[in-house]
Order: sequence, then C-alpha cells, then structure tokens
Amino acid sequence: MNDDNTLNLTGWTCPAPLRNYPTVVLGHGSGGKMMADLIQHLFAPLLNNDLLAQFGDSTLFRLDAADGGPRLAISTDSFVIHPLFFPGGSIGELAVYGTVNDVAMSGATPLYLSAGFILEEGLPMDDLGRIVTDFAGAARAAQVQMIAADTKVVNRGHGDGLYINTTGIGIVPPGVHIAPDRARPGDRVLVSGTMGDHGIAIMSVREGLAFDAPIVSDTAPLHGLVQAMLKITPDIHCLRDATRGGLAAVLNELAAASHVGIAFDEAAVPVNLAVQSACEMLGLDPLHVANEGKLVAILPPEHADAVLEAMRAHPYGAQAAIIGTVTAEHPGTVLARTRIGARRVVDLPAGELLPRIC
Amino acid sequence: MNDDNTLNLTGWTCPAPLRNYPTVVLGHGSGGKMMADLIQHLFAPLLNNDLLAQFGDSTLFRLDAADGGPRLAISTDSFVIHPLFFPGGSIGELAVYGTVNDVAMSGATPLYLSAGFILEEGLPMDDLGRIVTDFAGAARAAQVQMIAADTKVVNRGHGDGLYINTTGIGIVPPGVHIAPDRARPGDRVLVSGTMGDHGIAIMSVREGLAFDAPIVSDTAPLHGLVQAMLKITPDIHCLRDATRGGLAAVLNELAAASHVGIAFDEAAVPVNLAVQSACEMLGLDPLHVANEGKLVAILPPEHADAVLEAMRAHPYGAQAAIIGTVTAEHPGTVLARTRIGARRVVDLPAGELLPRIC
Repeated sequence: MNDDNTLNLTGWTCPAPLRNYPTVVLGHGSGGKMMADLIQHLFAPLLNNDLLAQFGDSTLFRLDAADGGPRLAISTDSFVIHPLFFPGGSIGELAVYGTVNDVAMSGATPLYLSAGFILEEGLPMDDLGRIVTDFAGAARAAQVQMIAADTKVVNRGHGDGLYINTTGIGIVPPGVHIAPDRARPGDRVLVSGTMGDHGIAIMSVREGLAFDAPIVSDTAPLHGLVQAMLKITPDIHCLRDATRGGLAAVLNELAAASHVGIAFDEAAVPVNLAVQSACEMLGLDPLHVANEGKLVAILPPEHADAVLEAMRAHPYGAQAAIIGTVTAEHPGTVLARTRIGARRVVDLPAGELLPRIC
Repeated sequence: MNDDNTLNLTGWTCPAPLRNYPTVVLGHGSGGKMMADLIQHLFAPLLNNDLLAQFGDSTLFRLDAADGGPRLAISTDSFVIHPLFFPGGSIGELAVYGTVNDVAMSGATPLYLSAGFILEEGLPMDDLGRIVTDFAGAARAAQVQMIAADTKVVNRGHGDGLYINTTGIGIVPPGVHIAPDRARPGDRVLVSGTMGDHGIAIMSVREGLAFDAPIVSDTAPLHGLVQAMLKITPDIHCLRDATRGGLAAVLNELAAASHVGIAFDEAAVPVNLAVQSACEMLGLDPLHVANEGKLVAILPPEHADAVLEAMRAHPYGAQAAIIGTVTAEHPGTVLARTRIGARRVVDLPAGELLPRIC
C-alpha cells in the first residue's frame, strides 16, 4: 500500500499505545480492548468532535441547533460477516437490523437507511439476489425506507463475496434522554433475552459443528421493543445492543462512561441450554459472545418491574430478565456473582474471540 | 458462499437481462451499461421506492413531510480505490470529497458525514494513520462534521488494505430544484474544468507509467463552487459530478432522465495536454475517464454566461467551459461534434474501463 509514488507524507506518528502493532490485526475489530485502543489512540485524536464524543450506539444531532428542530439519531455500521448465509438469516437482514438497532438504542424511531454494497468479482448472482431480497424484506419489517445506495465491485481475492455498509437515521421522541453516561447507583440492569445465540450460530456453521438442537441467530429489529419499554416510562437511562464483545463489553462500556460499578448475577443471565453447552465445549464465555437481537437496559429501580413486564409481553423480549444493579462502588468495574457465590471481575474481551461475527 | 447450511431459500430468480452473468464481474462496478443493468434489474425491483427513484447523486428527503421542515440531501458511497495513495491525494480525502460532492450536486450545503472503515488485517498502522489524517483534513476543508463511525477488520486476503464508506447529509436552500430530469431543450451544458485527470493519475501509478508532466488527481470539494453558481441564479436544472464513467456517462444519464438529446462540441471540452497524450497512447477516450473534482451543469441559456463567469472566478472552476446544448431531437442520445466536424454518438462505456477508480 505504501509505495514510492506516495506524494502525501502527512507526517502522522504512531502513538505509543499502538506501537506493539505495526499493522492492523484481527483483534482490532473485536469490540474488545484492542479495538478500544485503536479508536482511542488513532481515530479519536484525529476525528473526534462534540457530537461523536457521545460514544453511543448512535449519535444524536440536530440539523439546525438554533431552530429547535427534532433531535435525530444516526448510526453507521459495516457488515463483513462470514459466511453470508447462516442459520436464522443472512448478511442482508443483519445489515438492516444491525443499524436499525443502533438507532433504536437512543430511543429513536428509525426512518431511513442508506446502503453501500461492496461486491467481490465472482459473487454468484443468485447469492446477491437472495441477499438483496433479504435486505428488502428486513427493511419492510423494520419499516425503514432505503434512501441512498451505492454499489462497488472489487477484484476477486480482495473481498469475501459481499460487504454491506448501512447508515440509519431516526427521530428521538421528546422527553427521552438515553446515553451511555446516564447510569446511576441503584439503577437496575436488564437484558432482553438469551445471550450468545448469534455468535454460536455463526461459529457452528463456520466450524462445521453439529449440535442436538440447532442454534440459530437471534437477528431481529429491536425498535418495537424499545418503544414498548418507553411507553412504560421515558426515564430509561442507558440502552445498548449486545453485539461484538457481547454482554461483557456492553456492561464495561456503560460502567466506564457513567463512572459507576455494575454488579450482576451470572445465574440471572438467560442463556439457551444449547448455547451454554457449546460454550463449555469450545471454552467460551457466553458473556463475551455476540448477539444481534438483544439489548441491555439500565433504568431506575422503581420502573424495573413494569418495564420487565412490558418486555416479556413483546415477542423480542419474552425471556427478558433483571440481572443486576448499578453501584457507586468500584466505578468502571463490572463484577459478576458466579453460580457458586464467588465474585469475579468481568473484563472486556482482550483481543479477537470470533472475527467477522457481524 | 452458498452452502448446505443455507436456511433462507428466498426463491429469488435471476431476471433474463442478467443471465449472461452467473457471477458478479468487474464491469458491474464500472458506472457504465453493465452497472446500469445490475441496478435496473436486481437492486431496483427489490429496493426501489419514491425517494430512491429520484436517481440523483443524492436523494432529497424531509424528516417529516407534514411539517414543512428543511429539505435534506443524503448520499452514500463506498471507496475501494487502488492504490490507497496516489498523485494528488489518498483514499482519505477521496472518501470525504466524493460524498460531499454528491450531496452538493443537489445544491445542498453538506453538513454531516458518517464513516465506515473496513480494514484488512496487515494494513500498516502508519498507512491507516496517514489516511485518517487525510480524512480529517478533508472534513475540515469541506466544513463537514463526522458524526457516526464504525471500524471492522477482515482477514488478510479479503480486502485491499482499506475500504471506506461515507454517507453525507446536507440542507438544500429554498428555491433550489436540481434534478436529473430537469434538462430542457435550449439549456446549455457546462463543465467545470478539465476531464480525465483523476482516472489517468490512478492509471499512471497502477501501470507504472511516467509522463513528462506529472498527472495528478483533481480530487476536491465542489460545494463552494456550487454555492457560487447558485448565487448567480437558483435556476440550475441539473448538476452531476463526472466520476465513474466520466463525462460520457453523466451526459447519457441526464439525457435519459430528462428525455432530451444532448449535443456538444468535442473541441470545447477542456482536457489537459498530458491527459490527452496519455489517453491517445492508452487508447482511451477522455470522455469516459473518471474525475473527482469536476461537475457538469445544465441550465437555461440566459444564465449560462454569468454562471460561467462565476465558475471561472472560483479556484475549482477556473477552466470551466460551455460545451453544448440540450435538444428536443434524438431524446436519450448524446451526440458529439468531433474535431473534424463529423457527428458521433457518445455512448455509456459498456463494461469496465478502469476498475476501482474511486
């Protein structure tokens, strides 16, 4: 990439925390500590600004701060999952729901989507047709309109069939203020359902594993569930969908952003039996495994039971659970009470657990 | 990609016009006829809607049609250029200016940008740092704020260093109505400068060609030029930046969308002498070669001279020229008067002239 014809010597100097890595490695895309380092030390110093500094799943903005127009939420995501088709879905649905969910995590109603398709020379036309069909069906199901699109083709051996980038835009209802820094001591921590299904479904296809019960991805749009929760109370403090890095990454990010501790019961976290068995077999912690249709919510204790009930009444929240509490103690740290009653620190996954999970 | 684990048999059937191509080939990304076929026969039937059907460089939309809020313009583009660094710029600047320009082609003032970075394992960290530095500098120069970002890493051999998707959003001033279907017989056709510089600059690096005078990419943000033109008159009918497919593709697209003919003088089209020589040597038509900082404008004859003067007063329009006229005859067809006085039909480039030019 770097050759003698280079004319723009911008004089960028690699900051110390990144010097262990002269090149990008897979772990930089993991959603864990290495990725956090890359963002903190390379992207943020060059690109950060007041809006981006929100560090939410989506960024809130107004088109004209002076006119008091609606608050908007925007999120962008590239989907590079391998394989393109997997039990429970394809990259087509994932590219819609992944971005719809990020927008929904601000409490917004997703409205519009852009899509950039990067096709690899040699992609079977039938695969492309099926994926775009899935994409279109997912957009209908999520009631978002695709309003901008682009297609590029790269040479064989420089892609992996198909990558899709989507950017979503939604409107945040008045009175809703969800942000990663709003968790307060005493708040309750809820999850919307079983953890780890998506990651294990992908791994099962990729590694050719067969389980007694088939494990399928949980890919689903979550904005309807969020709206049902907001009907109970607009006073939800944090929402995040538990994708790359799983539940562990989300809890760590929220604890760090809010300068609070989080304590939860491992036994209270719903995990499908088949996923649990697969994780034990593979030596994985289901708390680190990605989901594509599950969210984490943090909200005041007085609303927790009613919100839980509303979640359980929704198809995408039927197995929701209250798993823990926000604490003033040990800010920035996530503690789990294990099934045998011990306490352990739950860290961000360090490097790469499962590359290209979304 | 298509394997036995596939669960979502969506039953998509390849339409007849695409059946010559069982797989995606490079020509499907060319900006020419094959790409038009792919969009018309695969993407559009599955994804099209009223907003997307505008087929502009950007799509105009409102957040709430009922409230009469501002008209917005959105555009998305993936950048897959090879090599990442080239004479006159890098993929970092290109990813900002390419999308800023598409938004500007509706007359909008670009405000916000999202960015999705797809990194290939093994990308030198220094290259990433320099490219993000270029990206940040270009965003400052174009006065757009990056408000959403994503990073993914793909395995070595499944990328080409770095791909970037950007989505841009801007506000369209009242009274401006620029669209590809608004060309009218009698309108004048203008270009903002020399044609083909970007494409030949890329080809020179890629093929290791050396010219007497170095040929550098024209990558530049064009919204300032558009604003200078709109100061003369808001009554500009069509604007399009002449990227993939070059001037020939733009004129054909506008002629088709407006159901008009276009006639122009080849001798009036500005082409750098070095680019002209390179094209002759390589057997290329500069009208088919990509640009990254040039636009085509179509507007009523009574404003043509004043707009031309305003363009020439702007740094990015110094070599602007009036090259032709919109006709009621031969709708959908573009005719050039050649340097020896003959007439020839200027078609869309059929397949792939130069893959991965942007």
